[in-house]
Amino acid sequence: MPTRNARVLFNETPTGYPEPGKTDKYDDSQTIDVENVPLNGGFLVKILYLSIDPYMKWRMETSTAMSYAPPFTIGEPLQNFGVGIVLRSENPDIKAADHVHGLLPFQEYFIAANEKAYRVLPKDQGIPWSVYLGACGMTGKTAYYGWVAYAEAKKDETVFVSTGAGPVGSVVIQLAKKQGLKVIASAGSDEKVEFMKSIGADVAFNYKNKSTHEILEKNGPINIYWDNVGGQALDAAIDAAAPFARFIECGMISQYNLSTESPPYALKNLTKIVKKCLTLRGFLVTPLDEAYRDDFYATIPPMVANGEIKLLEDITEGLEGTGKALYAIQAGTNHGKSIIRVAAA
Amino acid sequence: MPTRNARVLFNETPTGYPEPGKTDKYDDSQTIDVENVPLNGGFLVKILYLSIDPYMKWRMETSTAMSYAPPFTIGEPLQNFGVGIVLRSENPDIKAADHVHGLLPFQEYFIAANEKAYRVLPKDQGIPWSVYLGACGMTGKTAYYGWVAYAEAKKDETVFVSTGAGPVGSVVIQLAKKQGLKVIASAGSDEKVEFMKSIGADVAFNYKNKSTHEILEKNGPINIYWDNVGGQALDAAIDAAAPFARFIECGMISQYNLSTESPPYALKNLTKIVKKCLTLRGFLVTPLDEAYRDDFYATIPPMVANGEIKLLEDITEGLEGTGKALYAIQAGTNHGKSIIRVAAA
Repeated sequence: MPTRNARVLFNETPTGYPEPGKTDKYDDSQTIDVENVPLNGGFLVKILYLSIDPYMKWRMETSTAMSYAPPFTIGEPLQNFGVGIVLRSENPDIKAADHVHGLLPFQEYFIAANEKAYRVLPKDQGIPWSVYLGACGMTGKTAYYGWVAYAEAKKDETVFVSTGAGPVGSVVIQLAKKQGLKVIASAGSDEKVEFMKSIGADVAFNYKNKSTHEILEKNGPINIYWDNVGGQALDAAIDAAAPFARFIECGMISQYNLSTESPPYALKNLTKIVKKCLTLRGFLVTPLDEAYRDDFYATIPPMVANGEIKLLEDITEGLEGTGKALYAIQAGTNHGKSIIRVAAA
Repeated sequence: MPTRNARVLFNETPTGYPEPGKTDKYDDSQTIDVENVPLNGGFLVKILYLSIDPYMKWRMETSTAMSYAPPFTIGEPLQNFGVGIVLRSENPDIKAADHVHGLLPFQEYFIAANEKAYRVLPKDQGIPWSVYLGACGMTGKTAYYGWVAYAEAKKDETVFVSTGAGPVGSVVIQLAKKQGLKVIASAGSDEKVEFMKSIGADVAFNYKNKSTHEILEKNGPINIYWDNVGGQALDAAIDAAAPFARFIECGMISQYNLSTESPPYALKNLTKIVKKCLTLRGFLVTPLDEAYRDDFYATIPPMVANGEIKLLEDITEGLEGTGKALYAIQAGTNHGKSIIRVAAA
């Protein structure tokens, strides 16, 4: 019996922000016969959750710098990390009813060929499946790998975290507090400020109505800057940096959606990276995965399960909402880890 | 008998480029009685050479970020590394006729109190005294320390060196060639291009009549960028960087003399430091001195003496020329290591 197999296709390269329904296209014209479709040695996944992450904007560009995440193909489904449940399997390592995590297309059902590209999730950790896309998934890994590899954090140092209410920043705040650092954190709404305080930030502020420069001048100097935004906040952080400060360049979301009306921000303080002996280190999660993955899974999921790491999720119901969610994460109007719930179970 | 003891005073903080005679003031009103002046346990130095370096611009600003080089005081002599000959000494570790190297004021004679601030130079190395301010001094140390500490150079990698004909860049080129790297180097005149070729640069170009972007696109990607200039060249280097490239941020001379007509350059490619996992590392020579000084003196002066490291000097005769030399080094019109010859011997 044919079942709908709706998809979200990449439709057009955006010039500035992604535009819902223009950048992407929801398409419900395809069907799948879930019970009889040939698997050819693979396994059939019913997709439950798909992750929406800022880096997806890069994959909408015609060329990306790194091979870890190839560009999306126009007319083909978008792709990102997701969690699904296996309905049928011809692969001896994957069983029906297993929950699997890995890169999945933005559609309802998918026949996976290679079990090595997926991780079977444990059932007994008391963690909702969606969290394997956030604190226990790529965003948590981003925070953990970057922090462990590059922060060189010492007790009583001061760290500034931008987008501190986001899924990466919020984990960074909690890791830093656990190590005894003073945390300054920024976000774009008063509600997010309250969340950052609730997870331990010593100084939390709304950058839309407070000056980042003034806050850092008053509460700095900073030894570590976890940068998710670039632009003006980066400039203020360079100005407020202590000698030998480490800048972990995780993202520069303020500079991803430029246009002729919104040209790149001209940093006024960049020369201070020489004078102050600052290190700015750009990084991606994939090249660090092999070195830090086992530590991550041994450390973070237990901390999430016992409440030591708190998180916020922003769940969109149904694939139809993908376009709006892609826009929101670039504009910063999401509240917590952005996830599409494709199906309830 | 009184002898003239001319000085060059810091006169006014420049708003853009230093202005000869305005930023500095030559003053020959003081005298010294060389034979009878009391030494109070110190030693009398007749200053022979003083170094002119780009970082002196920072010391003309009211506050500098690092304590290694405090701001100059208005009305007091400028100060930088120099070489002098000892005329008289009451210090048991310093003898008359010793040549000493260390921080000295811009004047003809100076009574030094602390022998620990000076290094007695060896007489038997076949190296002109002025070279202890260039390849065998702070500029050579800058090249050597930065390269050894941060380049992570591997044979057959490609390095781009800006201001490759300068005293730092030219040593970097020669160290890189010795390790088997491909070297791309830029400078601001055809004469400097010829010098860079003569010391081994594989691709040498005049950035004033060739596009840095095009040269790097054709001859890159680059694994290491030795940055002396910042701005547009830095932007082109980020664009041409291979994944995991190392950027050694030694200076950003194009951004040191900004004004309302010449605002900071807006980097267009900065977000690529995340995508390409680039590291930008600002550094100063002083914090690395203890770790690398002995290696430096064991390695570089012998290479200079036997001709393995070639160098260019741009010598100004007499303290009166200090103001012009300070301007030239910011504008890039000097040809080689800028040095003031205060006295012939």
